[in-house]
Amino acid sequence: MKKPLLLLPVLLLASASADEGMWMPQQIPALAPRLTALGFQGDPRAFADLTGQPMGAIISLGGCSASFISPDGLIVTNHHCTIGALQFNSTPERNLLKEGYLARTRAEELWNGPGSKAFVTVQVAEVTAEITGKLDAAGGDLARARLIEQRVKARTAACEKGGLRCTVSSFFEGARWFEIGQLELQDLRLVFAPPSGVGNFGGETDNWMWPRHTGDFSMYRAYVAPGGKPAPYARENVPFRPAHWLAVSTQGASEGDLVIVAGYPGRTARLQPARQVKEQLEWSYPRTVRRNTELLALLDKLSAGSKETAIKVNPRIRGLANSMKKAKGVLEGAKKSGLLASRQASEQALLAWIAADPKRQAAYGQAIARLDALQAEREKTRERDAVFSSLLGQSALLGAARTGVRLAAERGKPDAEREAEYQQRNWSRLREGMERLEKSYDPVADRALLRYALVEAAALPAGQRIAPLDAAVGLAPGQEPGAAGTAIDAYLDRLYAGTRLGDKAVRMALLEKPPAEAAPGDSFVALATALDPLGEQLREAEKTRAGARSRYAPVYAAALLEKAGGLVAPDANSTLRVTYGTVKGVAPRDGVIYTAQSRLAGVLEKDRPGDAEFDVPGPMRELLKARPDRSGDRYADPRLGDVPVDFLSTVDTTGGNSGSAVLDARGRLAGLLFDGTYESVASDLLYDPVSTRSIQVDSRYLLWYLTEVARADHLLAEMGLEKGAAR
Amino acid sequence: MKKPLLLLPVLLLASASADEGMWMPQQIPALAPRLTALGFQGDPRAFADLTGQPMGAIISLGGCSASFISPDGLIVTNHHCTIGALQFNSTPERNLLKEGYLARTRAEELWNGPGSKAFVTVQVAEVTAEITGKLDAAGGDLARARLIEQRVKARTAACEKGGLRCTVSSFFEGARWFEIGQLELQDLRLVFAPPSGVGNFGGETDNWMWPRHTGDFSMYRAYVAPGGKPAPYARENVPFRPAHWLAVSTQGASEGDLVIVAGYPGRTARLQPARQVKEQLEWSYPRTVRRNTELLALLDKLSAGSKETAIKVNPRIRGLANSMKKAKGVLEGAKKSGLLASRQASEQALLAWIAADPKRQAAYGQAIARLDALQAEREKTRERDAVFSSLLGQSALLGAARTGVRLAAERGKPDAEREAEYQQRNWSRLREGMERLEKSYDPVADRALLRYALVEAAALPAGQRIAPLDAAVGLAPGQEPGAAGTAIDAYLDRLYAGTRLGDKAVRMALLEKPPAEAAPGDSFVALATALDPLGEQLREAEKTRAGARSRYAPVYAAALLEKAGGLVAPDANSTLRVTYGTVKGVAPRDGVIYTAQSRLAGVLEKDRPGDAEFDVPGPMRELLKARPDRSGDRYADPRLGDVPVDFLSTVDTTGGNSGSAVLDARGRLAGLLFDGTYESVASDLLYDPVSTRSIQVDSRYLLWYLTEVARADHLLAEMGLEKGAAR
Repeated sequence: MKKPLLLLPVLLLASASADEGMWMPQQIPALAPRLTALGFQGDPRAFADLTGQPMGAIISLGGCSASFISPDGLIVTNHHCTIGALQFNSTPERNLLKEGYLARTRAEELWNGPGSKAFVTVQVAEVTAEITGKLDAAGGDLARARLIEQRVKARTAACEKGGLRCTVSSFFEGARWFEIGQLELQDLRLVFAPPSGVGNFGGETDNWMWPRHTGDFSMYRAYVAPGGKPAPYARENVPFRPAHWLAVSTQGASEGDLVIVAGYPGRTARLQPARQVKEQLEWSYPRTVRRNTELLALLDKLSAGSKETAIKVNPRIRGLANSMKKAKGVLEGAKKSGLLASRQASEQALLAWIAADPKRQAAYGQAIARLDALQAEREKTRERDAVFSSLLGQSALLGAARTGVRLAAERGKPDAEREAEYQQRNWSRLREGMERLEKSYDPVADRALLRYALVEAAALPAGQRIAPLDAAVGLAPGQEPGAAGTAIDAYLDRLYAGTRLGDKAVRMALLEKPPAEAAPGDSFVALATALDPLGEQLREAEKTRAGARSRYAPVYAAALLEKAGGLVAPDANSTLRVTYGTVKGVAPRDGVIYTAQSRLAGVLEKDRPGDAEFDVPGPMRELLKARPDRSGDRYADPRLGDVPVDFLSTVDTTGGNSGSAVLDARGRLAGLLFDGTYESVASDLLYDPVSTRSIQVDSRYLLWYLTEVARADHLLAEMGLEKGAAR
Repeated sequence: MKKPLLLLPVLLLASASADEGMWMPQQIPALAPRLTALGFQGDPRAFADLTGQPMGAIISLGGCSASFISPDGLIVTNHHCTIGALQFNSTPERNLLKEGYLARTRAEELWNGPGSKAFVTVQVAEVTAEITGKLDAAGGDLARARLIEQRVKARTAACEKGGLRCTVSSFFEGARWFEIGQLELQDLRLVFAPPSGVGNFGGETDNWMWPRHTGDFSMYRAYVAPGGKPAPYARENVPFRPAHWLAVSTQGASEGDLVIVAGYPGRTARLQPARQVKEQLEWSYPRTVRRNTELLALLDKLSAGSKETAIKVNPRIRGLANSMKKAKGVLEGAKKSGLLASRQASEQALLAWIAADPKRQAAYGQAIARLDALQAEREKTRERDAVFSSLLGQSALLGAARTGVRLAAERGKPDAEREAEYQQRNWSRLREGMERLEKSYDPVADRALLRYALVEAAALPAGQRIAPLDAAVGLAPGQEPGAAGTAIDAYLDRLYAGTRLGDKAVRMALLEKPPAEAAPGDSFVALATALDPLGEQLREAEKTRAGARSRYAPVYAAALLEKAGGLVAPDANSTLRVTYGTVKGVAPRDGVIYTAQSRLAGVLEKDRPGDAEFDVPGPMRELLKARPDRSGDRYADPRLGDVPVDFLSTVDTTGGNSGSAVLDARGRLAGLLFDGTYESVASDLLYDPVSTRSIQVDSRYLLWYLTEVARADHLLAEMGLEKGAAR
């Protein structure tokens, strides 16, 4: 990082307990004694230097994490993080999702497609005072929220003047703010992905599960303009030369070893008030389970009918299945551990601690009650709000129409006054989104998904209707489902007959011209236009609540931190974090122990030829059968007597950490994080130091696969691993 | 036993490897060094004395095993072995299967119902020479089979003169024969059964699985006539006073402990020629999986509609689900271990060993080829034979009609010439079977199951038709399924309209009078009569094949034993066996370890109130929650810090061993065997010394439950475990 950070005194006081904590890099120096005690062999304070080794090699892919592993911009991440690129480069004749890919030369490296980018965090600066100073002068809640928004936009704009991509993010419920500057690499190309029988081995059955035998690894390369500057995809671009990259370890990670994970965890809610956790457990997660079950049944049926539809909706199916299984895991874990009661009890303890001191009572006394009231207010229209939001997400055509309508409305304003999504700095994202649609848009699936959302809207209770939809479709509260279905089908007939947005050129035109010119009389544009005033109303309401929340949430967080009296990691918020732990098995329930590591022998055990989830690729199957004794293999783990595949560790991670570099005690890449166990997922709401385990693929499996199966000597050489070289 | 047995020299030569072997008690002295090395503290030769301690306490329940645990004839066995008795004593108002039962006084002990009997093996004598001597004089295959049958009947009749129940059983594929005399206790009463939330905790989901938390224990008491002789149920009967009973251990069995299991394993096929194993793996087991899946769907649907039907078909559902899961396990295990290839390879080795020596070639050279030819012959009509046999088993009414028809035909013959099933010694069994029908017969289920069998018959190929059925129903090969279905439904209408066998009195009359008098003009009697000639023909064919087999199978077995050159355990054949092993966990697959013991804490972990499979009874749930720290409990395992529930051991068992006494190194009852792991079931065909594990319930769970939940102080006292007493 460029500027040293001042930590609030409260964060410097105590030592960490257990291995909880997705730490901000600048918090790591305070944890140095712990890391050294666990066996770290360098100076742990190096993690605070974002432009040094190893942090300079850590990458965000936007939703996934990754790292550089060669001086020529070779990037390693999870196979499941490269699905978009594999899909983009697949055809019905050549399914890269299934078959995998290996570029034998740089010329064969395939552009990932629009929107695939890598971000390298290069500077972090605290801007709490700049964002939250004298906010009370703003007046009401909405004005307050707008003032915060303006300040964030102004800081972002100033930061981006230097050519970086910047974000201003809230930490600790808005108690602290940081401005984060990232290098944005815009031309990524697919270098290597194993077949799905390796990269997605175990499929949905094994997802979130142990024992695991997934080779969840793939490789990209970042390209830049010939001068070295980040630039959009162009044939003549050249490989990016990062200042730092990770050495891939030939020794991986074995039971008991220290591992340090650096990446971009998405969201956790461990510091949220209990009232919000209650809603998640009692409403949001059960809703996810119910809807995703139904949506998956719908998409599975459509996929069975058409190979092309199957390829197009595959990423969506995997996403739905993944979030559903996670939601189930959270609910089961929460029930098993009495999570809600535990959160409520600790909140009661916080309230008692506040009440015990008049000064604390004066400072913090109101915060939780006010936040609970805001939450209650939000819940009054949650069904309507959720249906409205999913309506825009289900149909690609409606989403495109909405983008056109909103962009037209926002384009007239000065850039600083536009909604963040429609500011000029995001126009290329809007364009890439429109372009990517081409690979995932399927007219049959689009209609089926929109129908699902309309049926949901039809069933909304009387106080929470989406009036423009009622008018357009002919729906009414309490309507008999059959009648609603008939009206919806008739409406969908008209809607899909009256649109040209299935045509890419028309969609792209929406980004350039007003909708009336780009798609005159288009039925989807008409629907998006009809829905827009309600959308505006919901945004205003949300901002008003955010304004109110900004009065109390930071106060609540300050109380929480003061009471904790020590080093506390903020909730994950998609910013760069570091977490550490050890390679360790676990007893997930009475009578069973998960061992810390899995082996290649276990891949053959699970092999079920012809079963898409467990179909080991033929050449690899032959190889494994032909050489069952791998104890002498270069990449074998001596204690396992076999090449290791995946391992469990106690590191604290969540969604977004997928693809994260797993570093060993010497800072080498010992593996890639790709999952957590089912028993761990409730840790997003309350960390359980006993049962939480992340799942990583061992670098030795990656190297064995590249050596023995893919025979990718050129990549091994690029990573500095010529034949026989050890590291 | 009364007479000491001479072991063939070949059986005395070598020591046993691993823990394979369901040993005949008389083989145990040869294994004494091994048992002593494992920690047995008495003289292992005692196991050969069937009328001494502990073998005098070991019981067969006919399909299950059990043991005496008090001088007043108290019997302990599995809960799942007492389903029949629980069903017999249940009503729609009082479901003992669900609620359990505890007799607080002897007067409250409930008669199990007809046919529930206990057998105590008291003598075993080898009769190989008597059965197999000079068989060649008989002539052809059928005559040969009849001669064996006559000799078996004659020996049985002679043996039973002393008041015992006798069987003459073949061992080692007919190479050796033993006459076994058993005391037959005919009046058993239900003393104690826990609710299904304990006794069947885990239900179908956990069946064959680990980790397990089932309290699979129940208790009967044997009653005899006031003079002490076995007698049918009578109010005035008195408790039986066995000469031997087992002390129930308060220390159960912990990891590493020696355990010895004595009981009645049903069937294994480890010594069978590979050709027969092939048919089982490729035809019989897959057929079981397919049919049971369909039959379960049928019965589940019927059960959902009626509480009474549900109770009546519950045991059948559990039986079907159990055999289906076992069949799946065998197929999976066989596939995983390459079982068939392995059996074929060892048979090839046997053939090579035979061919290597002219003397051996002369003695054994033809046997396997002849047996394979017989097997091929049998397979030609296997579809028809299987359908015919299942036809008679599906419908209780058809079964009853058949019994009447057959009994009438057999009654006219001298007893020694009757088919064994219809000899006078079995008339009471026929009667009990008819009586038991009353509790399981459900007209709707009966018709649905018969319909299933008729649909199967309709689909038989042209060469294998059941002609009398085709004629009666109006079926023909190649008939369109819809047309066959219509014909079947019309026939079933007539069949069920034309019968009075639903009336118990009419059914019972079939045992006394010719069918024409007992049930004149009855449609089911007519069907059974029409089917009888084909039945007779199939019996003759089977006997002919058995006669042929008796020429070659003993020769094959002799070759097998000679080549093995050591102590070999015969395949299980429902006779008394002893097996030993140690309490030990297992790695069922890469990445997972099953620990050796489960704990009460695990019961609460699995608790799902309202889910019939995992619904811990309310009072027990409260107790477990109120006292979560049970480390100081009288029945706690110090190393577990909790009361143990179930444990894994390496003992070699199969179906029929359910309820078997698990003895510790001092001969005390340390638990009850009740299951094997899913990964073990293929051991019926090929024992796997690494992965095979049996599942037992620890005596400490039984004692804890009786003490803390059932508060059955009177039973504990009867077992010599007054409050605080340790053993």
